[in-house]
Amino acid sequence: MNPLKNSKVAFFGTGNFHKFNEARYVLVEYKISVAMLNLKCIEIQDDNLETIAKTSAIDAANKSNLPIFVEDAGLFIKALNGFPGPYSSYVYRTLGTKGILKILGNNKSRDAHFLSVIAFCDPQGQSKPMTFQGRIEGKIMLEEKGSEGFGFDPIFEPLSGNGKAFAEMTTVEKNKYSHRGQALRRFANWYEDYI
Amino acid sequence: MNPLKNSKVAFFGTGNFHKFNEARYVLVEYKISVAMLNLKCIEIQDDNLETIAKTSAIDAANKSNLPIFVEDAGLFIKALNGFPGPYSSYVYRTLGTKGILKILGNNKSRDAHFLSVIAFCDPQGQSKPMTFQGRIEGKIMLEEKGSEGFGFDPIFEPLSGNGKAFAEMTTVEKNKYSHRGQALRRFANWYEDYI
Repeated sequence: MNPLKNSKVAFFGTGNFHKFNEARYVLVEYKISVAMLNLKCIEIQDDNLETIAKTSAIDAANKSNLPIFVEDAGLFIKALNGFPGPYSSYVYRTLGTKGILKILGNNKSRDAHFLSVIAFCDPQGQSKPMTFQGRIEGKIMLEEKGSEGFGFDPIFEPLSGNGKAFAEMTTVEKNKYSHRGQALRRFANWYEDYI
Repeated sequence: MNPLKNSKVAFFGTGNFHKFNEARYVLVEYKISVAMLNLKCIEIQDDNLETIAKTSAIDAANKSNLPIFVEDAGLFIKALNGFPGPYSSYVYRTLGTKGILKILGNNKSRDAHFLSVIAFCDPQGQSKPMTFQGRIEGKIMLEEKGSEGFGFDPIFEPLSGNGKAFAEMTTVEKNKYSHRGQALRRFANWYEDYI
């Protein structure tokens, strides 16, 4: 029996509490509760986030036997040919924000974007995962600012963010602009009719 | 019928001609011919090269229905917490050797190692892949040297290499020291009795 038939719940396959928290704030606006499932899913190496997210979603659905979504995101820096891109989490853990600032140095070309891809897969439904994307343009700041959020948030200033870094915003404020907030809203709009 | 029964051939699942060439030089010493199969195999994200190589080998064996080996390698820089590690190929394509030199700057701590993992899987044999490793300690040079090899070879000087970068060595000379040469010899020693 589909556990979602009589209640609006979305299962989020992630081990990242920050992502779960951002999802919770967006989806509550759609009266959808988010349940975090800390599954160890396959994450492939690929330059395309959508391909990575789709593969993970299929694996998450197989492992949980639940309709489930996963989210993959990356920071793409134009002057660095898109680096760190799909490997942002690994690069954050090894080089950190300071490593990125060091590579860029005083480079005037600081354009970057964050991309988020949500992939949803239902083991009872069609085999192909649905995907939902969000993208925010911005700049890599000259120094770290703020202590909210996670990952590269202290060095990313969204173009429309009034000069604030993501890490200087509350979760609700970041969700307004962010790649993940956009992808979550696109997902929620579709999901509220699906369930 | 096993195509290897009456001839010594090893199938190498790779799209990298440089790796194929290095393998060819080592395996010919064991009277084993190498056949390059340019398969698009699953490559997962993981901090452990062995896990990545094993998963790829199983996928390569499933896709080719042949006893086949794959190889995964990475450059691990101590001062950068192991970066670029399993993502060396992506980092080479985006930041390049110059990017690594920039991150290190004049840092005196330049210790690094190359690790190679070969994983072999036989669809007719046991389901678990066999793995063979090679590792070479060295230093990241202050500037690029040489034009042989590929990837980060111009900035890596093996400790036992008489001050030469990998990119200043012929394939045969690099194979003497290199992580991949070691892993290939370990594989060949086992494989010549296996086939």
